[in-house]
Amino acid sequence: MKIIKVAYHGIRGSFTYLAALNHFQNNAVLESHARFSDIFQNLDAGIIAFGVIPIENSLAGSVHENYDLLWRYDLKIVGEIYLKISHNLLALPSSIESVARLKTIKKVFSHPKAIEQCERFFNENPHIEKVLSPDTASAAKLVAESNDITLAAIASTQACSEYGLQTISQHLEDNPSNITRFVVLSREISETSISNKCSIIFTLPHIPQSLFHALEVISDSLINITKIESRPIHGKPFEYAFYVDFEFNQDNKAQVNEVIKKFGKKVLSLKILGFYERKNPLDC
Amino acid sequence: MKIIKVAYHGIRGSFTYLAALNHFQNNAVLESHARFSDIFQNLDAGIIAFGVIPIENSLAGSVHENYDLLWRYDLKIVGEIYLKISHNLLALPSSIESVARLKTIKKVFSHPKAIEQCERFFNENPHIEKVLSPDTASAAKLVAESNDITLAAIASTQACSEYGLQTISQHLEDNPSNITRFVVLSREISETSISNKCSIIFTLPHIPQSLFHALEVISDSLINITKIESRPIHGKPFEYAFYVDFEFNQDNKAQVNEVIKKFGKKVLSLKILGFYERKNPLDC
Repeated sequence: MKIIKVAYHGIRGSFTYLAALNHFQNNAVLESHARFSDIFQNLDAGIIAFGVIPIENSLAGSVHENYDLLWRYDLKIVGEIYLKISHNLLALPSSIESVARLKTIKKVFSHPKAIEQCERFFNENPHIEKVLSPDTASAAKLVAESNDITLAAIASTQACSEYGLQTISQHLEDNPSNITRFVVLSREISETSISNKCSIIFTLPHIPQSLFHALEVISDSLINITKIESRPIHGKPFEYAFYVDFEFNQDNKAQVNEVIKKFGKKVLSLKILGFYERKNPLDC
Repeated sequence: MKIIKVAYHGIRGSFTYLAALNHFQNNAVLESHARFSDIFQNLDAGIIAFGVIPIENSLAGSVHENYDLLWRYDLKIVGEIYLKISHNLLALPSSIESVARLKTIKKVFSHPKAIEQCERFFNENPHIEKVLSPDTASAAKLVAESNDITLAAIASTQACSEYGLQTISQHLEDNPSNITRFVVLSREISETSISNKCSIIFTLPHIPQSLFHALEVISDSLINITKIESRPIHGKPFEYAFYVDFEFNQDNKAQVNEVIKKFGKKVLSLKILGFYERKNPLDC
């Protein structure tokens, strides 16, 4: 049996690790990567078969760094994963009761996005210093290895059990509808899978009507746009890049390909990031 | 002479403070606010005349929290400001030479976005702990008041002189084309000023064609869309909110109003955030 290697961001127990586990189950060897760019490089070099990266969050918006990397590397999106994000306050096990314990915590480690999403908690506990970690699971690991009962981490319940920590408080997030969308990347296209969703990036000159004339083509009755976002391009002040996701019925794939071909003639440049099976964010 | 009160985010020397100073010069009293929501509340209550908030950054994208507040409150955008963002490493004055000094720094305080934008610096100095502050100027103030020469802040050159600190290193940012766009808010519309740009938020049902049919109206030859971004609406899984900015020639204001009226009939809901004078990001 061939071993499939899958790269994820962070360490065991990170949200990207959980997304990768959710998608690949026990059919792959998951490999930790500290940086998004390392995942792209290793996929490009053929060292790993698949990579899992966060692409957007319902509160924080698009992960622009990963869109930039998708534009630079020639990799394909072959799947998507939605994950509900919930934050816990984790610390070294102790017999002190939770409320009293909270008062003894001096420093909390986590990913900057996780800290931002728990603003109410930090407002209610102004004595706590907020320290950044590369990902939530690394924060949990640091606390586990610290031997210091005044430290805590904001991380997943899986990170709690992975690093033998105790949960002091649950659901620290301000907004309960906190969902992250991840994508699965590969150098090769998997032909066998269902494909009813597509992601593209295109660029347009900053001229009146150009966006409309481009959308006129893509707004075919076969296509349902679910995301559109414009971004100024660094160093090219009058050009814009657009991220678009759209869904379609897989029986219409051939016609959709024709629409995309026509669309490519209306824009400055077009990159098809991949065709893949859509998932329902409500199922996560 | 009437004193105009202007609210800004952070404390003296923050980037929003600099944007407010740039726009109002010495014609206003600038008042510090710790939270964006406080600025909206005080404007709404008529306690302050204007407010300045960041709305998007060329690297980090839209500030969704402020778009959400613009949707909730009935305030108007009356101006925009572009500011080039550059980061400095600031510490208490010392006679130690800069390179040797850097090695003695144990903790760096700053805003999470500023820390994210200086990734290379932190990779080169893995011994430094990254600690969050509500804004860059608050980080500088904390270091100034600390009496601890192992602490540093990432902040503006103005924050350096404001809090009597020393610059250890300049241009810590990974990407030199780092521009933030701020908007000026008011409860009242200023009729006298030039208006050749408009910002709107609208919502659409998640049905094929709805975006295209809405854009068909707004893609009038008089209108040049410069930004479009879709966002899922929390708690309404099949509805989307769109942020759109467009420019026009101020002589055509009456016709543009007609176009917007027609557009309003094609969408689920429409909020005109304001008409104001466009600025050139290249001039900042």
